[in-house]
Amino acid sequence: MSISAPSLVPARAAVPALIAVDWGTSSFRAFLTSASGQVLDAVETASGILRIADGQFAPVLQVATAPWVSAHGPLPVLMSGMIGSRQGWCEAPYQACPVRIADAARALLPLPETLTGGGLRVSIVPGVVARDASGHPDVMRGEETQIFGALERLGVNAGTLVLPGTHSKWVTVADGAITGFSTYMTGEVFSALKDHTILGRLMPAPRAGAGPSSGAAFVRGVSAAAGIAGGPGALLRLIFSARTLGLFDELASEDIADYLSGLLVGAEIRDAAGATSEVVVIASDALAARYGQAFRSLGIEPITAPADCAAAGLAALARHAGMIASPQA
Amino acid sequence: MSISAPSLVPARAAVPALIAVDWGTSSFRAFLTSASGQVLDAVETASGILRIADGQFAPVLQVATAPWVSAHGPLPVLMSGMIGSRQGWCEAPYQACPVRIADAARALLPLPETLTGGGLRVSIVPGVVARDASGHPDVMRGEETQIFGALERLGVNAGTLVLPGTHSKWVTVADGAITGFSTYMTGEVFSALKDHTILGRLMPAPRAGAGPSSGAAFVRGVSAAAGIAGGPGALLRLIFSARTLGLFDELASEDIADYLSGLLVGAEIRDAAGATSEVVVIASDALAARYGQAFRSLGIEPITAPADCAAAGLAALARHAGMIASPQA
Repeated sequence: MSISAPSLVPARAAVPALIAVDWGTSSFRAFLTSASGQVLDAVETASGILRIADGQFAPVLQVATAPWVSAHGPLPVLMSGMIGSRQGWCEAPYQACPVRIADAARALLPLPETLTGGGLRVSIVPGVVARDASGHPDVMRGEETQIFGALERLGVNAGTLVLPGTHSKWVTVADGAITGFSTYMTGEVFSALKDHTILGRLMPAPRAGAGPSSGAAFVRGVSAAAGIAGGPGALLRLIFSARTLGLFDELASEDIADYLSGLLVGAEIRDAAGATSEVVVIASDALAARYGQAFRSLGIEPITAPADCAAAGLAALARHAGMIASPQA
Repeated sequence: MSISAPSLVPARAAVPALIAVDWGTSSFRAFLTSASGQVLDAVETASGILRIADGQFAPVLQVATAPWVSAHGPLPVLMSGMIGSRQGWCEAPYQACPVRIADAARALLPLPETLTGGGLRVSIVPGVVARDASGHPDVMRGEETQIFGALERLGVNAGTLVLPGTHSKWVTVADGAITGFSTYMTGEVFSALKDHTILGRLMPAPRAGAGPSSGAAFVRGVSAAAGIAGGPGALLRLIFSARTLGLFDELASEDIADYLSGLLVGAEIRDAAGATSEVVVIASDALAARYGQAFRSLGIEPITAPADCAAAGLAALARHAGMIASPQA
């Protein structure tokens, strides 16, 4: 038996155990995973919660997961992201920091079957709220799950992690707990400045087939932001240099957008990273490369998290909650 | 003679001596002034330089000033503002700081009569360029003239002056010279954030007939910005509080816009004012009141400059340049 068993059921057999769903504002991503969080199949659509009319979430979920349910039976479903917000399917209250994976697992919100229909057992991961020194609340939904996944995948339980993007989240983890975080509106501010202020006026229209930028102007912006003295308001004068350098021909017009992006990313990193010399980056390849360039230019070592943090985090939460069994050792 | 003269020509007779023009991006303001800069008549239109097609500046000037020329003869014309930019009528090069009124007066750019037509003698005040500690250029056109006017009207020759607005200019004056300045994109960033980011989504649409805001939310934003630690990048997280406080019902939706405005103005003032306890404000009444509220909440004394700084500055420059005679003492 000990000889034949491995060929029938390998020790690390990838048995489907969970349907893990990362359902955000603008996208829907579902994964068929093993108990260890290994991704066996995946589907991604543009059915973010803002695209769902009249609360019709159930049909979207049923259609996307039907092939898996029909092949493997009614697997449990665990979802994270804005699906648990007030604008989502059912509001899962925020948990206050510090939050360990066990805390989040205890607070999963099971949806009533009258809501989900189709025999699916669905739960939602709660969001997390932190308060800064001024008492201002800050919130995340979905990122906490990616954080738990990254910690597991990387085998660490402390450090600084960043999820860069439209709203960059900087997260501090100590002893396995999310102890605090800040949201930087970097990506959204960049778009608003580029498209709706005078700073965009000297930028040439994007050319079809234009190659990727060299990155030199981006790094120049990062350095300028890191080198400037001043408080939060200094950003309001710093960004004006994207115009004046262009006016004085000290910055080529095709470099202005990259320079402005560098100013904002550099300012974000300098404020958020503090004395940290190492940061875990959870991002798409393109964004990880962009932030990686900024980090290295500032002497900070970026550690890129694997791509499947959301699935890994959802599987880990499902195990902690007893929704699925831990994989055999 | 010494007895009868005053009744014929009073010692401070308001004799028309100059046509002073403040011609900006979005507005055209012309003043008929005495040699001392007293405004005898004024005209304002929306014919900012961006509205002038095909370089047709001369007709706009001629039509606006025709009644004065016909009544008082071909008075000299002095213009300041974006009319002297590359997008204006004729480019008047920037002067580098420090710039005294005598320096600017020596560098007035006379327009050839072939350009101006109609027998008008027209000159343009040059702009000013400053470099910050990073070597980034910063520029102004028109504000230098208002500064010179404010200094004369207030009888001071040193201090910190601010011209708040879309692009707030903070100017340092020492011994009568503009020694440096910074541009903060406060007003334009506010509009871009309000109209083109998630921060505007919780703001209610403006109600017709809504009264003026109480100012409490604005001052709350000013205080929050002044109380936060961090570098330039901290602004990217600070502004997110305009959303999260709304989400947590810790800020009424109708107060979000005022709070966000306060955050930006507070951040601007805190970065720009440094240890200054007194600032001269050159602004419209509404904007001067708004900034005055912010200044007082931060323990800074605002000194409101008179409304006619542009005309006063242009007349002072014209006297320094010998375009008009100094008024009789």
